[in-house]
Amino acid sequence: MLFEKIKSPGIAHISYLIGDGNEAVVIDPRRDIEIYLEKAVQKGYKITKIFETHRNEDYVIGSTELKAKTGAQIWHADENLDYQYGKPVQDGQEFKVGSLKIEAMHTPGHTPGSMSYVLYGYEGEPWMVFTGDALFAGDVGRTDFLGEENLEKTGGWLYDSIFNKILPLGDEVILCPGHGSGSVCASAISKREWTTIGIERKLNPKLQVENKEEFIELTSEVLEYPPYFENMEESNLTGRELLADYEKPAALSVDEFAEAMEDDDTYIIDVRMEVSYSSAHLPGSISIPLQNLPSFVGWFVPVGAKILLVTEKGEYPKEAIKHLYRTGYDNILGYLSGGIISWHMAGKKSESVSTITVDKLCTLLDDESENSVIFDIRSEDEIDAEGEIMDAKNIHLTQLPKHYNQLPQDKPIYIFCGSGLRSMTAASLLQKQGFTNQKVVLGGLLAWNSATCPIV
Amino acid sequence: MLFEKIKSPGIAHISYLIGDGNEAVVIDPRRDIEIYLEKAVQKGYKITKIFETHRNEDYVIGSTELKAKTGAQIWHADENLDYQYGKPVQDGQEFKVGSLKIEAMHTPGHTPGSMSYVLYGYEGEPWMVFTGDALFAGDVGRTDFLGEENLEKTGGWLYDSIFNKILPLGDEVILCPGHGSGSVCASAISKREWTTIGIERKLNPKLQVENKEEFIELTSEVLEYPPYFENMEESNLTGRELLADYEKPAALSVDEFAEAMEDDDTYIIDVRMEVSYSSAHLPGSISIPLQNLPSFVGWFVPVGAKILLVTEKGEYPKEAIKHLYRTGYDNILGYLSGGIISWHMAGKKSESVSTITVDKLCTLLDDESENSVIFDIRSEDEIDAEGEIMDAKNIHLTQLPKHYNQLPQDKPIYIFCGSGLRSMTAASLLQKQGFTNQKVVLGGLLAWNSATCPIV
Amino acid sequence: MLFEKIKSPGIAHISYLIGDGNEAVVIDPRRDIEIYLEKAVQKGYKITKIFETHRNEDYVIGSTELKAKTGAQIWHADENLDYQYGKPVQDGQEFKVGSLKIEAMHTPGHTPGSMSYVLYGYEGEPWMVFTGDALFAGDVGRTDFLGEENLEKTGGWLYDSIFNKILPLGDEVILCPGHGSGSVCASAISKREWTTIGIERKLNPKLQVENKEEFIELTSEVLEYPPYFENMEESNLTGRELLADYEKPAALSVDEFAEAMEDDDTYIIDVRMEVSYSSAHLPGSISIPLQNLPSFVGWFVPVGAKILLVTEKGEYPKEAIKHLYRTGYDNILGYLSGGIISWHMAGKKSESVSTITVDKLCTLLDDESENSVIFDIRSEDEIDAEGEIMDAKNIHLTQLPKHYNQLPQDKPIYIFCGSGLRSMTAASLLQKQGFTNQKVVLGGLLAWNSATCPIV
Amino acid sequence: MLFEKIKSPGIAHISYLIGDGNEAVVIDPRRDIEIYLEKAVQKGYKITKIFETHRNEDYVIGSTELKAKTGAQIWHADENLDYQYGKPVQDGQEFKVGSLKIEAMHTPGHTPGSMSYVLYGYEGEPWMVFTGDALFAGDVGRTDFLGEENLEKTGGWLYDSIFNKILPLGDEVILCPGHGSGSVCASAISKREWTTIGIERKLNPKLQVENKEEFIELTSEVLEYPPYFENMEESNLTGRELLADYEKPAALSVDEFAEAMEDDDTYIIDVRMEVSYSSAHLPGSISIPLQNLPSFVGWFVPVGAKILLVTEKGEYPKEAIKHLYRTGYDNILGYLSGGIISWHMAGKKSESVSTITVDKLCTLLDDESENSVIFDIRSEDEIDAEGEIMDAKNIHLTQLPKHYNQLPQDKPIYIFCGSGLRSMTAASLLQKQGFTNQKVVLGGLLAWNSATCPIV
Repeated sequence: MLFEKIKSPGIAHISYLIGDGNEAVVIDPRRDIEIYLEKAVQKGYKITKIFETHRNEDYVIGSTELKAKTGAQIWHADENLDYQYGKPVQDGQEFKVGSLKIEAMHTPGHTPGSMSYVLYGYEGEPWMVFTGDALFAGDVGRTDFLGEENLEKTGGWLYDSIFNKILPLGDEVILCPGHGSGSVCASAISKREWTTIGIERKLNPKLQVENKEEFIELTSEVLEYPPYFENMEESNLTGRELLADYEKPAALSVDEFAEAMEDDDTYIIDVRMEVSYSSAHLPGSISIPLQNLPSFVGWFVPVGAKILLVTEKGEYPKEAIKHLYRTGYDNILGYLSGGIISWHMAGKKSESVSTITVDKLCTLLDDESENSVIFDIRSEDEIDAEGEIMDAKNIHLTQLPKHYNQLPQDKPIYIFCGSGLRSMTAASLLQKQGFTNQKVVLGGLLAWNSATCPIV
Repeated sequence: MLFEKIKSPGIAHISYLIGDGNEAVVIDPRRDIEIYLEKAVQKGYKITKIFETHRNEDYVIGSTELKAKTGAQIWHADENLDYQYGKPVQDGQEFKVGSLKIEAMHTPGHTPGSMSYVLYGYEGEPWMVFTGDALFAGDVGRTDFLGEENLEKTGGWLYDSIFNKILPLGDEVILCPGHGSGSVCASAISKREWTTIGIERKLNPKLQVENKEEFIELTSEVLEYPPYFENMEESNLTGRELLADYEKPAALSVDEFAEAMEDDDTYIIDVRMEVSYSSAHLPGSISIPLQNLPSFVGWFVPVGAKILLVTEKGEYPKEAIKHLYRTGYDNILGYLSGGIISWHMAGKKSESVSTITVDKLCTLLDDESENSVIFDIRSEDEIDAEGEIMDAKNIHLTQLPKHYNQLPQDKPIYIFCGSGLRSMTAASLLQKQGFTNQKVVLGGLLAWNSATCPIV
Repeated sequence: MLFEKIKSPGIAHISYLIGDGNEAVVIDPRRDIEIYLEKAVQKGYKITKIFETHRNEDYVIGSTELKAKTGAQIWHADENLDYQYGKPVQDGQEFKVGSLKIEAMHTPGHTPGSMSYVLYGYEGEPWMVFTGDALFAGDVGRTDFLGEENLEKTGGWLYDSIFNKILPLGDEVILCPGHGSGSVCASAISKREWTTIGIERKLNPKLQVENKEEFIELTSEVLEYPPYFENMEESNLTGRELLADYEKPAALSVDEFAEAMEDDDTYIIDVRMEVSYSSAHLPGSISIPLQNLPSFVGWFVPVGAKILLVTEKGEYPKEAIKHLYRTGYDNILGYLSGGIISWHMAGKKSESVSTITVDKLCTLLDDESENSVIFDIRSEDEIDAEGEIMDAKNIHLTQLPKHYNQLPQDKPIYIFCGSGLRSMTAASLLQKQGFTNQKVVLGGLLAWNSATCPIV
Repeated sequence: MLFEKIKSPGIAHISYLIGDGNEAVVIDPRRDIEIYLEKAVQKGYKITKIFETHRNEDYVIGSTELKAKTGAQIWHADENLDYQYGKPVQDGQEFKVGSLKIEAMHTPGHTPGSMSYVLYGYEGEPWMVFTGDALFAGDVGRTDFLGEENLEKTGGWLYDSIFNKILPLGDEVILCPGHGSGSVCASAISKREWTTIGIERKLNPKLQVENKEEFIELTSEVLEYPPYFENMEESNLTGRELLADYEKPAALSVDEFAEAMEDDDTYIIDVRMEVSYSSAHLPGSISIPLQNLPSFVGWFVPVGAKILLVTEKGEYPKEAIKHLYRTGYDNILGYLSGGIISWHMAGKKSESVSTITVDKLCTLLDDESENSVIFDIRSEDEIDAEGEIMDAKNIHLTQLPKHYNQLPQDKPIYIFCGSGLRSMTAASLLQKQGFTNQKVVLGGLLAWNSATCPIV
């Protein structure tokens, strides 16, 4: 028996590989599909079916990639959407995987067509359920994709899906959601890597409700989403060019890189840590440390843009490329060979962004508080959960590009996030806008909390 | 500085990766090009040029694959051929690789358009020479591709190329040929993995000649070549479908495999060792142990045939697939999931081939020599080098399919090769022809030589 | 959060790695501990504690190895045993792992001191329970180690441990046992790779009882165990020489291998598949195909014996060495360089064992049934589960060395097991005893069942 | 035939693995010997002999490690030294490796006992020569270890070794020295990765002499060497504790790390790139970027010191640990789990060092040249080769700890090296001494040369 949980960091997407006999299926494959071939085909399993839980909006689904390499059938989740590939699965439809059985179960709410898949064990009893974005460890799927005006309807659907379909499978059934914790986005998904229906029934805060009305009220939120989602929605209906057909991002010499930078459609993403970016970076580059790339590139780089990458020592940006491809950023021109030290050795100019540690900030604030701004870029959820900073200006990082004018050009701006990573992204965006007085607070709110400066 | 020698076992093809600054070039890339990307692009080099030493006839050149992934220019070797890609290199043309220089040098003989490439070092002196199939360690390239009638002409060309162009570069220059030892084919290429012009000048038997006439006489041989060469000659002019676009060979269940076998165009290749094949194998399968696959598949399986693979335990036939793709066998349907033990557990029939150790054979031969045949499938070269077996029937393995009628159906046939591996291939071919009395001599001639049975 | 389930094939032992914050613990580590270092220390976790569920009898526990590399504390399970290392854990004792909690819970039955460990989640509720050999997926631990006379007592303990301690944790709690399915030994452990308390409560056949008496009756079996268990019991109290201090098994030339074979204390283990062994193997070698090595070596090779290994092509027997070290076979002299083909090429003698496919056997049996023996080496459990073969002689493979005299030297013996693998082990043992007429039925009972020969 | 050249970066040490038949030997093994086992033992070769070219002074020789794992004989090079292991090899002594021959050849000069090893090919002719530190590509071994007063004697020895023993082997012989280019130390070793005797005879600047006197004059230099050399000299006579017996460096939490820092014998080495260190680093830590670690740790950290490591993101410092072990720094306590961002998030203090790009420096210098110091830490060789900076204060980095008092505490110090990496090491040392006004010039002299500021 083959059971593999495959987690893609950053977007914290989870796909599943289930095999029995010599046959295997994949639920919600990611776009870089080598891992499924390695863990199934190369272990004696033939991948015969691909199941999608819904038309995913946050990553490029790998169904057509995987089909091209295995000939597997694609079963997608919403027959009302205009899919250019695969077949729609029906509520109650059953499939064999060796001597196991998988049954599709319509669980709308996150999207109208969302499907869960119930895996029945060797004895014929429900064993696991793959819920996509309907039910997570510690949270439920968002219900706002049909707009604010439909929140009651979609929330009601989700209530029925969870309370009348998923939970009745039994406390003992293992729950396999489509996302896990680990996203830097503010999110209530728990760090509980493995969970069961019973654990969620008891501990998931969104399930501690008396009735449908309470559930709808609790879940009726309109959340922000990044612009690239629209591109995903299209890609995941029409399919997309196969990764295999792309030229590999190349090692570019300093001169080649400098030339490529001159194109106005080109975005330079510096994936180094915040402190590295701080002391020296290429003019115009945006700081998005590698671990944040999947979550934030979609907010600051338009789909289709030409991308240049900068790494620590000029090492091949393998993970960055994977992250970008997963979220549909396909036009990666190359990376800086030799890294930023080569840039300097070639006599090129670089820029810097100031940082400050909390102990120094505390001292400073006493002196200059009137003349400076504390700028908190955390999300509302984070602020609620972790506490507000007194007198801080709040704009969530993702919304910054729309609100540059709310910040003063002439005063020191001390930028806060949880750790300092996202603050550097904000600082780099401000630098591109001509701000010169922004400073990143190293360690962010966590550092702040360890010191003795006041929090509301 | 980057210098990598990349050897593909079986056909013993060698390609080279040379880099300086942040630029790299590849000489005679193979078709599975990941290794060049890994060793160059992922180490900060941009692959900018591909050099072909000649229109290769024994493997699919990887130039178009590599260009698709890197955008590198392709420089091929013979401007008189009708290439559908790349540009022809000219004699004397120079190229920069970082601060190094590569110069093309026309060295005809093996083919009319063969090019060598001289690498000049940091001081501007000849450092290495890449001779393709003109000059090897211990041997020179064959000159018979234009036919027996042109042997004098092509041999003369090769003499001039070697004696008037390559050797004058200097004894100290490092020699980098296009093939190494290791092929199971009878071949005079030395096991000398690294060599220099001076070493070859002194030790290469083909270079110990007084003059051009003697050289031509020494090299005027018409050698056999497998049918797939013709396909290669075409592929290597027109380019070929990219590997990236192929469906991966799948793990097939016993039933799926059995069904696929029924197609008359399907060839089952059993890549296990000779003793495994001996006790049990699928009816109709051909034994070609993995290490012999690149050298022998071309003789017994037509280009374009559908191929099914059998491995020891049903493990993924990664190497076999690579070997097949490298020699242009692209139509691989899959492999037997679970291996032959699964076949048996499903109650399927299998066949066997007898083997015999030399100690038993010696005893037997005393008794039955009149009623049996010693069948030696080694090549002429091998027989010359290693000794003839008294009273043996000789047919080189590669020629066996044309000469089945020279073997008796009614007498025991004891098959000899160097080790026993190729004998099993012969035995499997005979079994397909209905022979039932063939026996493989385990350990082959080497075993025989350790015993006390007579050799001429 | 770090959660890793590490399965060692063959003995199907499962160890667990749990981490939070920058701290990690290991439950029941195996002896080759690199995997824990790689998955914890190399990911930023410090391994601080090792928990043993009981004094393991079937493998060398890796506690002292892991302590030597990490400085972690060892907590063992039975304070009444005379451990030479570590400290005894107490029932109810609690440990922090980052922000998680682990609580020891005394669950005797399999052994008097057996401990389970309950992992409490971020909300403080039971999340997972590590039951060692108390409760498995589909089975419970054996209770016969204190002898037949104590079965009632130990069965009673186990009933209380399971029904009064483990099950009350809640259906939703994830169950993490010390062994999984996959052993070739007859065993009722389910293929259910992941399970929960609720699933076991509903589906585990041993838990479908009315009361303690019924449970005791159901579990009161005295099972066989291999001689090496005694050595394990001692090793796992005193600790053992560290693997790091061993000389690595060497590649031995044919002559070196032949010389080493001459020592009477030396055992040659041939880990190739059954069909490979069948056609040719070294005289005196025992056939134990790799996947069966952990389960069967302990029956046929005395602890402390010098071991020589034979592999397919002379490849390094990495897995075999791991398996042997895990079960305490430390005296591995080396392996045959070049494999058996080198043996033959050196003119050495080899032996063979006959095989037969079921279709041929059916025909034969009609003719000669009076003059031959069907020899079924499956275990009682297997025979009960899969069916008896009419008129077969039954001796479980593990008991064969004590019962050679029950088999005829002068008649054909057709050996059956599930697949043919273990039959070859039996055949090799018989060959060492001078039997010459044994034949292995390829595909074993599964093949037999697909044909039309009669089964009771 | 097996031939592997194994290069250890940083110290640019090269060891060689040569095999034929099933036997292999290693010349000058490094201490982390897994690579030899992997490339020989795991490929069917038995390592039977270890040859040392001389008592190495710059790294821990791996002979005893390798012997412990393989049982190979150790042949060391200088019978007059008091070796505690192995046997001394004699001039002219011959050894078989399969069908190849290796002959020891006494080539004193670098040390009195230095040995070269000549490998004879299949035809019995010299094929390769392993010269240790006698002859390199582009340079010869230093001759100053017996002191300035013996330079004439040792230089004379080396002349005889090279001109009367090595060169006469023939231009065509492949030369395999004990070190390659790549060290950050100023060094004349060429980037020529592969070379021959003929190439060196023609191009090596040290060999372009008329006679012995001229050679002695050319090579009579007393070079600096780091303090740890003395420790190596002892280690490489007595042997050393085996790596296998060490506890692995652990992931330390911020608190554990902070506590360990307090010990005065503890050195914190920050192996991040110079720009990362620049913006934020742990107080008291020394900057030695990973690639420089092998070359510079020996100058600034006493042998035996307790070492703590800081990496970019808290990743396991695998390479750093290898480098340290190779140079005899065995007492590595651990590394900072989570990296410096965790440090900040815990509210800990960090420090910074200023950097400056050359374009800004040029402007500044016009204004403040009187009030600042240009501090050039390159070696004399580098300054000779690359040019002097006008009015710069020169102290080679390695000599800095003895000359802090030559630098002003009250003026800006602009630190130059080739690229900026070593400058940051200097800056970190100065910071430890209380200097506050030092600034690292990013890109170093190479950047400077691309700008228009004056160079002598």
